[in-house]
Amino acid sequence: MKLERELIFTHNEKNGKKHGDQFQQLTDRLTGKGLSVEQIIKDLGALQIAIPSWALGTGGTRFGRFPGGGEPGSLEEKIEDVGLLHSLNRSSGAISLHIPWDIPDDYQDIRNLASSFGLKFDAVNSNTFQDQPGQEHSYKFGSLCHADPHVRKQAIAHNKEVIDHGIKLGSESITVWLADGSSYPGQHNFRKALLRSLDSLSEIYQYLPENWKMFVEYKPFEPGFYSMVIPDWGTSYYLSTQLGPNAYSLVDLGHHLPNTNIEQVVATLMMTGKLGGFHFNDSKFADDDLTVGAIKPYQLFLIFNELVYGMHNNESNNPSLAWMIDASHNIKDPLEDLLQSVEAIKIAYAQALIVNRELLEDYRDGHDVVMAQELLQDVFRTDVRPLVAESRIRENAAFDPVGLYRELQIRKRLIGERGKKTIATGL
Amino acid sequence: MKLERELIFTHNEKNGKKHGDQFQQLTDRLTGKGLSVEQIIKDLGALQIAIPSWALGTGGTRFGRFPGGGEPGSLEEKIEDVGLLHSLNRSSGAISLHIPWDIPDDYQDIRNLASSFGLKFDAVNSNTFQDQPGQEHSYKFGSLCHADPHVRKQAIAHNKEVIDHGIKLGSESITVWLADGSSYPGQHNFRKALLRSLDSLSEIYQYLPENWKMFVEYKPFEPGFYSMVIPDWGTSYYLSTQLGPNAYSLVDLGHHLPNTNIEQVVATLMMTGKLGGFHFNDSKFADDDLTVGAIKPYQLFLIFNELVYGMHNNESNNPSLAWMIDASHNIKDPLEDLLQSVEAIKIAYAQALIVNRELLEDYRDGHDVVMAQELLQDVFRTDVRPLVAESRIRENAAFDPVGLYRELQIRKRLIGERGKKTIATGL
Amino acid sequence: MKLERELIFTHNEKNGKKHGDQFQQLTDRLTGKGLSVEQIIKDLGALQIAIPSWALGTGGTRFGRFPGGGEPGSLEEKIEDVGLLHSLNRSSGAISLHIPWDIPDDYQDIRNLASSFGLKFDAVNSNTFQDQPGQEHSYKFGSLCHADPHVRKQAIAHNKEVIDHGIKLGSESITVWLADGSSYPGQHNFRKALLRSLDSLSEIYQYLPENWKMFVEYKPFEPGFYSMVIPDWGTSYYLSTQLGPNAYSLVDLGHHLPNTNIEQVVATLMMTGKLGGFHFNDSKFADDDLTVGAIKPYQLFLIFNELVYGMHNNESNNPSLAWMIDASHNIKDPLEDLLQSVEAIKIAYAQALIVNRELLEDYRDGHDVVMAQELLQDVFRTDVRPLVAESRIRENAAFDPVGLYRELQIRKRLIGERGKKTIATGL
Amino acid sequence: MKLERELIFTHNEKNGKKHGDQFQQLTDRLTGKGLSVEQIIKDLGALQIAIPSWALGTGGTRFGRFPGGGEPGSLEEKIEDVGLLHSLNRSSGAISLHIPWDIPDDYQDIRNLASSFGLKFDAVNSNTFQDQPGQEHSYKFGSLCHADPHVRKQAIAHNKEVIDHGIKLGSESITVWLADGSSYPGQHNFRKALLRSLDSLSEIYQYLPENWKMFVEYKPFEPGFYSMVIPDWGTSYYLSTQLGPNAYSLVDLGHHLPNTNIEQVVATLMMTGKLGGFHFNDSKFADDDLTVGAIKPYQLFLIFNELVYGMHNNESNNPSLAWMIDASHNIKDPLEDLLQSVEAIKIAYAQALIVNRELLEDYRDGHDVVMAQELLQDVFRTDVRPLVAESRIRENAAFDPVGLYRELQIRKRLIGERGKKTIATGL
Repeated sequence: MKLERELIFTHNEKNGKKHGDQFQQLTDRLTGKGLSVEQIIKDLGALQIAIPSWALGTGGTRFGRFPGGGEPGSLEEKIEDVGLLHSLNRSSGAISLHIPWDIPDDYQDIRNLASSFGLKFDAVNSNTFQDQPGQEHSYKFGSLCHADPHVRKQAIAHNKEVIDHGIKLGSESITVWLADGSSYPGQHNFRKALLRSLDSLSEIYQYLPENWKMFVEYKPFEPGFYSMVIPDWGTSYYLSTQLGPNAYSLVDLGHHLPNTNIEQVVATLMMTGKLGGFHFNDSKFADDDLTVGAIKPYQLFLIFNELVYGMHNNESNNPSLAWMIDASHNIKDPLEDLLQSVEAIKIAYAQALIVNRELLEDYRDGHDVVMAQELLQDVFRTDVRPLVAESRIRENAAFDPVGLYRELQIRKRLIGERGKKTIATGL
Repeated sequence: MKLERELIFTHNEKNGKKHGDQFQQLTDRLTGKGLSVEQIIKDLGALQIAIPSWALGTGGTRFGRFPGGGEPGSLEEKIEDVGLLHSLNRSSGAISLHIPWDIPDDYQDIRNLASSFGLKFDAVNSNTFQDQPGQEHSYKFGSLCHADPHVRKQAIAHNKEVIDHGIKLGSESITVWLADGSSYPGQHNFRKALLRSLDSLSEIYQYLPENWKMFVEYKPFEPGFYSMVIPDWGTSYYLSTQLGPNAYSLVDLGHHLPNTNIEQVVATLMMTGKLGGFHFNDSKFADDDLTVGAIKPYQLFLIFNELVYGMHNNESNNPSLAWMIDASHNIKDPLEDLLQSVEAIKIAYAQALIVNRELLEDYRDGHDVVMAQELLQDVFRTDVRPLVAESRIRENAAFDPVGLYRELQIRKRLIGERGKKTIATGL
Repeated sequence: MKLERELIFTHNEKNGKKHGDQFQQLTDRLTGKGLSVEQIIKDLGALQIAIPSWALGTGGTRFGRFPGGGEPGSLEEKIEDVGLLHSLNRSSGAISLHIPWDIPDDYQDIRNLASSFGLKFDAVNSNTFQDQPGQEHSYKFGSLCHADPHVRKQAIAHNKEVIDHGIKLGSESITVWLADGSSYPGQHNFRKALLRSLDSLSEIYQYLPENWKMFVEYKPFEPGFYSMVIPDWGTSYYLSTQLGPNAYSLVDLGHHLPNTNIEQVVATLMMTGKLGGFHFNDSKFADDDLTVGAIKPYQLFLIFNELVYGMHNNESNNPSLAWMIDASHNIKDPLEDLLQSVEAIKIAYAQALIVNRELLEDYRDGHDVVMAQELLQDVFRTDVRPLVAESRIRENAAFDPVGLYRELQIRKRLIGERGKKTIATGL
Repeated sequence: MKLERELIFTHNEKNGKKHGDQFQQLTDRLTGKGLSVEQIIKDLGALQIAIPSWALGTGGTRFGRFPGGGEPGSLEEKIEDVGLLHSLNRSSGAISLHIPWDIPDDYQDIRNLASSFGLKFDAVNSNTFQDQPGQEHSYKFGSLCHADPHVRKQAIAHNKEVIDHGIKLGSESITVWLADGSSYPGQHNFRKALLRSLDSLSEIYQYLPENWKMFVEYKPFEPGFYSMVIPDWGTSYYLSTQLGPNAYSLVDLGHHLPNTNIEQVVATLMMTGKLGGFHFNDSKFADDDLTVGAIKPYQLFLIFNELVYGMHNNESNNPSLAWMIDASHNIKDPLEDLLQSVEAIKIAYAQALIVNRELLEDYRDGHDVVMAQELLQDVFRTDVRPLVAESRIRENAAFDPVGLYRELQIRKRLIGERGKKTIATGL
């Protein structure tokens, strides 16, 4: 399903007057503070958030799953769905594939299809957390960390194969998330498990094309319920420094112990030049994989505040970041949920862009805690949605993506096309 | 598969000498402290922990599942498995069924089968956290709390049906665990959701036979990732007092926020006479459903310390508790895991039984914090396994249940009987 | 020090134009949504947050304290400070005293002084968490829960004395926060400690004048590091129902385990008619006592969302709530910090007032999770500060309280009056 | 106060028979498992845990402090107290001083005094978390991380001075714990604060004598309630690798976010050769500073399991560790509390020494999760106290240190000597 541009124009025109006023009011206010609204809109327009292929269907928990309808059943349909999102918000211009769920039959066809929607192929993702039919060795007790060299070899080969697929699609990075861990004290020799993982990662790293990056994700628990081989940013940082200059840490917002100051982790990683990518979502308890900004919007802003600062003060040559949503949609229409997530990200980004950094540094240097806090809160309390909407309108995206999606009854049309009982691959 | 008694006798005889010495040494020590070892052994022998029918197969996470072999495929085979456990440890003399996974074809046959293994039917469990094929209304957005009265009606009817099954099997209680909750701020009207749940529970409560109890379980999150309708003991207590004298709270060890003092919750609930049952497991991060005592054995002992105190100081007429294991076996043989869990429970119970309560109260009254702590630690550091083993031997159970299970290659035999690819119903 | 009204008018006039435009824009937007801006402004103007007498000086941690200057050294000076706050924001029209730190020499003088600032006396607070010079029995091992009846008697007498002071000042409630707890397993008999506390509280409750309320605060840890006698809302609810109709629970935002859904606790307590009061602050890790809204502003809004809903849907006859700030100012000027806290509370309240509740209920009933979330986020993303400012201006308070406080160099003047090394009583 | 050796001999003789039997029984059991009991006793006897000078008095919280009597008021008395502990358990053969609380008048006198008790001087500790009378710059807003170079200079100079004191006393390491952090978003530029801290630490590091080590401690919060400059092991590891080969991380058990797998942190740090020291204590909620092993004894054993493994498998040339207790005694006699802590450490160490490591590795390599868990639990359930007691007896320490301490009424004697109202320096 392809969205006719005309529909977007009509929608935007209908909302034009109301938006215009609000945008003008905000512009006046920001200009009065010495900000260049044009630059901010340009920056907002340039932001692209990759959509993972597995987030297009209904997710679930170990207790159950309640699928909706019209879910994409093939790689082609997944690309169409991301294309749909991108045409609505012009900020989802990349798809992140998951092997073996998304192996193309014909690479050129798939690239052409993606191209027709304006989509690029972001990081490819390997899967050694499940056993595939016909697989020789099981990952029940780990993959890259496994005590048995045959299993490690198989997992390494799989990762190399993922890189091969990625090369053919035009990806330039691989994200390695390991489910490797243990559930009982005694089960793992922590040191051996980590060293074997480092060895395995090294072999995969050697296989990377020169222009590729490797992202090493960390997570404190689940599916390991006592330990994970790469539980925290410190371990991920250790591995990426051992592996080489093209290895980086990847931060998933849901992969932290309670109360972690994630924005500080982000700042520290960027300072060392080792922050590679980001998986956006939100959570209250654990790796809840909720819509971005749904629970802790202020934290999201504070993270973007560090990201923007880091991008503008890049003494460590930290590369541009790979942005991706990694959420699970158990009770919402996945496409609506993704539109909400991208919107939340852009709002936080817009807010970070209007922070007066010179003034903030002055307050900090003068230990004016009250005013430093006030400055950030003033920004956060500012309603920047007209900025985000303006950027969308200029990019020929919809003024109100979720609104238009509903107006056009897109889910109904997808169910019409694909049926009610389809189930997308994923979790 | 039925275990020949002879095998147990042989095993026990083989280990008799070693055990005898250690038991004598411990007896001497405890007798020296004025304890009646005979009474303790009697109490230990009387302890029965129900096994839930869904814990006999391999569990999993939302990321994947790695089944073992020889899992029970029918209710009959599940009963056989619990029978096997019971013949090994004589402490698993009850099975807790789950509807609709365990609906018998012929009740009398099933009762006879259970009887032949010495098993009773413990609390029956309803399931409104998944949709069953052919079900009219979905539980995607809740069951007993649902805004739509038709859905509530369906869920209430299901619970009544579960009671009906239970009556025919000889159960005398129903455990209601609700997955009802919300994942996003705004989704639920907390008050209405709770009041509707109370209404629904009342209707089920009215349906209970006079000699039945209802256990209301609580859980802070999962599958709801923002709120659960019954998130904590306070809400469960509120509901059970509103429902009536036969309604009680049920504590699952994994259903608490980080750092909760669970033993205090147990003490408070028993003080109010409203503690009905217990789901044993262990966890480090969330509802990890690990083997009992695998992570926090001292906490387990402290909980038993309260349980034993509460049973012996029962001014509130708290009923005898329904004990059950509720764990998930993702990487272990489920039967071995269950044997380990029961052993951990019996060790904690034995320790709680040798606490000198008069002396402890003296220390408390005198604010001798050091000695109160020393007293409990002294008990916990005492190796009470000979007591537990002696109790088993006297009950004609195995000296070393896991050891004998392995010696007899029971899993291999079960795989021989049932095949390698069987998958038990459950999570 | 008394603030001349003229200064406020000048300040407001100076900011009048800018504010007028922004207020008009917001009014247009809200009126367009069918809201009565006038009613909201009236509600905002009526909100009064009590200031605790101990929050006017610099706080500290067990590691150290870095006092500022010009802190109030007497009850009179404390009242002046609150008066100052109230003249700046017209929302701090009450002071909450702490006995024995704030015992007046002459009650009528003190009442007159407070009156001259437009201040009332909110809940009085007892202190059994410290030993006072000359005190007969120590609270080292508890107060109302103490095993020794003499200590309990002393603590009860102290609470009665606090009520006596309160009566003479015109207070109508007492807040009981107990530091009673234990730091080691074994130290407390949980049940006896709770029952003794209930007995003690009952005796104090009997002493209450008819028009008085008792607020029972809860806290999970600190200073008890293993258990607190009243650790959670469930225990507080239990106690308040046992005590009688004038006993209520008090929620302090920092007194919860990690990840607690506090807004749900608020909703449940109001549903039972047992929510009495609120201690506002914010925290990231524990009872951090930070400025309200500094860490989790969205949570603050969600809490107010429940409070407003509860006040408008009060089937349980929950009384009007006692609002108070309870924060610690370790690195900020306490008065600036308090102005920030009140501002954050009013913003959250204003947001809660513009929630379209009928529409929200429709979304809920229709399980439109996306739109229910959008509705609350739309409100939260709306910049309601012009509403709050307008309400202030109409009440003759300052357009920008912190700004005016700084402009007038009030702290400098206070230091001039009181000196640099003054230390207020408090923590 | 010096303990007469005779008193210990009498005490040991009195308990000799009972102990002898139990030790023999345990020896038989362990020997049967192929263990060399003699080697274990030798290892246990060699373990020395430093006592910090500030732990000899009553601690407190921000809410209050309830001092006991007979606390040491001078450095000489502190040394006497540690000497007393050491004569009772022969495992507290070192004292860790805190500057400026413990500056000697005459170094040689102090060294002689310590020597007379068999005590060494362990790591010295700097204090930049409090302002001292007459200090030019305040640490209210940080020390080594401070934006103002004058403050940093002062803090660096203080650390150098601490090293100077340490050199004169025979210490060979300095522990740097920084209270530097922030309490509000916006307050700190995370990157600048970290880089300035690195710079400051480098300057101190340059000043270290060649045979000295620097320990960099980390802590997630308190006194900073939003961020700490060195919040986690990753940051500490980063700093210690940047500083040089003599810089190491120091792990304090209470300085972790909820649910952290500390034993894994220990394993990883030892693997990198960067674990320098350990502060032992226990906690349930935060940095509770409770008696070692009081809350999570199994975790303590698992940590020792890693420590012993790391010491025996030291490919990374991790140095021998500096062991220290760092606890706070709010409601116990500090000396009794310290005796309990040392005992808990030695029990955990003894357990770690009887782990059959070859067998454990076999289970791990074979993915026998059940038996790996059983092996560790078997060890943990073994009552190793006779080993610890035997080691003590052979070192001429008391069979039962706490028991003898009470029997001899040492606290009473100390109060007689020092008075009831003494207050030790400390927190």
